[in-house]
Amino acid sequence: MTDSVIDRLMQGLRILPGVGPRTAQRMAFYLLQRNTDGARELHRLLGDALEAARLCARCRMLCETELCSVCASDRRDAEVLCVVQSPTDQWNIEQLQQYSGRYFVLHGCLSPMERIGPDEIGVPLLRALLERSPPSEVILALSYTLEGETTASYLQELLSDSGATVSRLSRGVPQGGELEYVDRQTLAQALRERRAL
Amino acid sequence: MTDSVIDRLMQGLRILPGVGPRTAQRMAFYLLQRNTDGARELHRLLGDALEAARLCARCRMLCETELCSVCASDRRDAEVLCVVQSPTDQWNIEQLQQYSGRYFVLHGCLSPMERIGPDEIGVPLLRALLERSPPSEVILALSYTLEGETTASYLQELLSDSGATVSRLSRGVPQGGELEYVDRQTLAQALRERRAL
Repeated sequence: MTDSVIDRLMQGLRILPGVGPRTAQRMAFYLLQRNTDGARELHRLLGDALEAARLCARCRMLCETELCSVCASDRRDAEVLCVVQSPTDQWNIEQLQQYSGRYFVLHGCLSPMERIGPDEIGVPLLRALLERSPPSEVILALSYTLEGETTASYLQELLSDSGATVSRLSRGVPQGGELEYVDRQTLAQALRERRAL
Repeated sequence: MTDSVIDRLMQGLRILPGVGPRTAQRMAFYLLQRNTDGARELHRLLGDALEAARLCARCRMLCETELCSVCASDRRDAEVLCVVQSPTDQWNIEQLQQYSGRYFVLHGCLSPMERIGPDEIGVPLLRALLERSPPSEVILALSYTLEGETTASYLQELLSDSGATVSRLSRGVPQGGELEYVDRQTLAQALRERRAL
């Protein structure tokens, strides 16, 4: 048996998504033996991030300032608002470098089962934002899951009197995806929502 | 673009074995948003481990005291010494709870290409250990790779006058492994080293 500080580190690493006992073990030994400099750096970065991380007062994106860099920028199009479920989704869309509007992060979806209602997903803040600076388009970039659909319907209803165009992401065959491997529901959807060329 | 403290944490997480950009991103958001308590705990554990981790003065296992728990215990059989390549291997063997002897951790294998010679794998310390308390059996629990084989040959030579029985781990078909999927070399080996029942 290894001495306890190392065992405890292995346990601690297991909170990371996708990390089981074997990977945690490999990571712990890597950090403490093969790359202690990197481990020290990671320790510092995690500490800094934990201390600085907060939600943007406007869009609820994870950031380290009162307003996130998107909300603070005057080069973003205030006419388009993209509603996402999580900071990860916001981050992934930003990485595309093709969207120039603003965001609102719900941090989840409506789920009566898990008692997640409008207040939990920041609807009061979203309402205030819509009143303060009404966008001409709202993109509901939500998952096509049951909860995503429920949330999208709710928000569509909420936006019905706002005068904004409401859109959702297109559904269909993934880029590079072979038709042969596309599941039936997606294929049916792609057929129904086919695009005129 | 996310603000920088979070980006830097993503970069920092990428030093972990098996963690690419996508996983690092998922981990960073998980730590800073979904499980900040766990993240704080992980931060503390990593700091503690980095501060405390050292090599056992006797066997070079990663531990937090002068001697590791195995070397410090008087309930371990000093007659058997198991030589392993890494702390991970020692840890995995300990987890089996069927070995009651002691260890010596090489922290690598001989590799002329990478300029890893006997001094780098702790041979002077191993020699001193063998002289101080000569074991009756030495198990060379090394990988069956080229470097593992080279190291095993070298150590076998080193031990030739010690009077100790030198053994290696058995090779063969993995437990639960279907013969159909076993590679040819392993199958050939298992046939040559077949066991009388």
